[in-house]
Amino acid sequence: MRLTELVGSELPIIQAPMAGAQGSAMTIGVCNAGALGSLPCAMLSPQGMRDELAAIKAQTARPFNVNFFCHTPPKPDPEREVAWRAALTPYYKQYGIDPNSIPSDAGRVPFTAEFADVLSEFKPAMVSFHFGLPAADLVARIKSWGSKVTSSATTVDEALWLQAHGADAIVAQGVEAGGHRGHFLTRDLTTQIGTFALLPQVVRAVKVPVIAAGGIADAQGVAAALSLGAAGVQIGTAYLLCDEAKTTPLHRQALKSEGIRHTALTNLFTGGHARGIMNRLMRELGPVSPLTPAFPMALNAIAPLRAKAEAAGSSDFSPLWSGQNASGCKEVSATELTRSLAAAL
Amino acid sequence: MRLTELVGSELPIIQAPMAGAQGSAMTIGVCNAGALGSLPCAMLSPQGMRDELAAIKAQTARPFNVNFFCHTPPKPDPEREVAWRAALTPYYKQYGIDPNSIPSDAGRVPFTAEFADVLSEFKPAMVSFHFGLPAADLVARIKSWGSKVTSSATTVDEALWLQAHGADAIVAQGVEAGGHRGHFLTRDLTTQIGTFALLPQVVRAVKVPVIAAGGIADAQGVAAALSLGAAGVQIGTAYLLCDEAKTTPLHRQALKSEGIRHTALTNLFTGGHARGIMNRLMRELGPVSPLTPAFPMALNAIAPLRAKAEAAGSSDFSPLWSGQNASGCKEVSATELTRSLAAAL
Repeated sequence: MRLTELVGSELPIIQAPMAGAQGSAMTIGVCNAGALGSLPCAMLSPQGMRDELAAIKAQTARPFNVNFFCHTPPKPDPEREVAWRAALTPYYKQYGIDPNSIPSDAGRVPFTAEFADVLSEFKPAMVSFHFGLPAADLVARIKSWGSKVTSSATTVDEALWLQAHGADAIVAQGVEAGGHRGHFLTRDLTTQIGTFALLPQVVRAVKVPVIAAGGIADAQGVAAALSLGAAGVQIGTAYLLCDEAKTTPLHRQALKSEGIRHTALTNLFTGGHARGIMNRLMRELGPVSPLTPAFPMALNAIAPLRAKAEAAGSSDFSPLWSGQNASGCKEVSATELTRSLAAAL
Repeated sequence: MRLTELVGSELPIIQAPMAGAQGSAMTIGVCNAGALGSLPCAMLSPQGMRDELAAIKAQTARPFNVNFFCHTPPKPDPEREVAWRAALTPYYKQYGIDPNSIPSDAGRVPFTAEFADVLSEFKPAMVSFHFGLPAADLVARIKSWGSKVTSSATTVDEALWLQAHGADAIVAQGVEAGGHRGHFLTRDLTTQIGTFALLPQVVRAVKVPVIAAGGIADAQGVAAALSLGAAGVQIGTAYLLCDEAKTTPLHRQALKSEGIRHTALTNLFTGGHARGIMNRLMRELGPVSPLTPAFPMALNAIAPLRAKAEAAGSSDFSPLWSGQNASGCKEVSATELTRSLAAAL
């Protein structure tokens, strides 16, 4: 089944949810071009999410996707926090930050019944997850009002797990993808597979529609993914320079620089593995450290460094999320970008 | 320009050269189906190569490719050898091997004028390299008799370098590919990019034809690569179970096992980074070790372990080269496999 049939969109294209880089304005712009716009909720409160969903409903009648993280919040690990903050001490000193003044927040909130309550008011065409799926009763509840449930698989094993746990479609997230890896059965990065290899193997392994993600940047990429058996595609990085994106000026600058040629998977910014453009922190500590607290607890220690550096015009400590193919980034509206992505359909 | 025009083959498909896993029989089988068969010479002497080329010429009139490694042989590093053999000591003990009895061979011989002399007798349609290109005078000599010269690029920077140094075509080797990475400007594995992202960016960056490699396993994969702008494709892993392949029985068994789902880049077997199926040595030491001698010197220390283990029916110490998509492997003739790869053209 094509993605268009599954969710009732005109185009087999999902705009990838990008927490921190977009809100409802982008969702609406994409929907109005006939693709499936997404609203990322990992950084929203239930009320914040309700406001955003109301804005979407007010401005488009088209189907859309609402996205959540569904990690299990880790137990605080004071020893690891101490080790990690010690590793960051030279940077704290440079910026005059007292490490004892840094709070230990939750960072990112996972999907809960409270969010499901809000969702029930809006019944979106699709609800997508990252890091697996929430508890079975929550999945059943979402499906009960007709929403289609999907999540990211980074291996064939994860695709089979998602299908067995009720996913109506599976996003095959190739290693090229920007932002957080959706892996949830293992954190071993050697298991992560390129889109060209992952997509056809997932298509062969499962019965539900498969959405290709990772490295797709233009109309030719969309066509190639469909010819590899995808029911649709999910595209994120290409939207990061759009008018509606909340991408920071420093992040925009990095996306347009030569530095874009070298991204890496890093756990320094959140504790989870995510792909971003190499910057000072990643170069000096190595992009993957064994010391970082578990996702999302690592956010706390970096936050003040990021704030001070950004205020001084530096992205040395900023997560510059990007996939391995930013060649499709354009400074246009999300509606226009979506139309260009659909040009070869 | 399409690959077919560049080298005069009927199909835009190159059978990837796989040193150790094939000889002229596979080259001939592929050529007879209309694709470009390859003869890998990294493990041949000049005379051995002459014999193989004579066999090819005797059995097909079609164009073919001859492949070489062109690494700079490293200076022996006795300290590193000692450290590496110390890391392997528990295994040597298990198999009753005296580490002092292990010779320090050259391992793999790079392309030299002597090989060029033999090539001049045969003037193959294409000569491909791995790890960059040989010295300018050797490249000029190969081109002087009409052979097209190509090499692997794993980044946009490498593609630009190869074009500037005379490559007539460039193999864009995505991170999915099996066997040795062709990287030569950096050994930093975070620079390695998936085919879906690498291919269109290389196509955009260079003027010469680009051949896609990595993760392509079937007719749909060939079509997808061409729609991403490739002038042709290079396929290796899918040929590893063919009748003509010299793939060992243990390697064939691994390719058909569940273990095929988890490959990794490893430097344990040769000192160079290469993709193979996870096995005991990779699991226990980690697939990438900072202790291994430089390519190809690491071959020596593993050789006796591999020999003893294989004699006992174990592939614990064998390099089980494979790409991330072995779904196209078939136990058929190379001619038949080639025809199936061309089915969507």
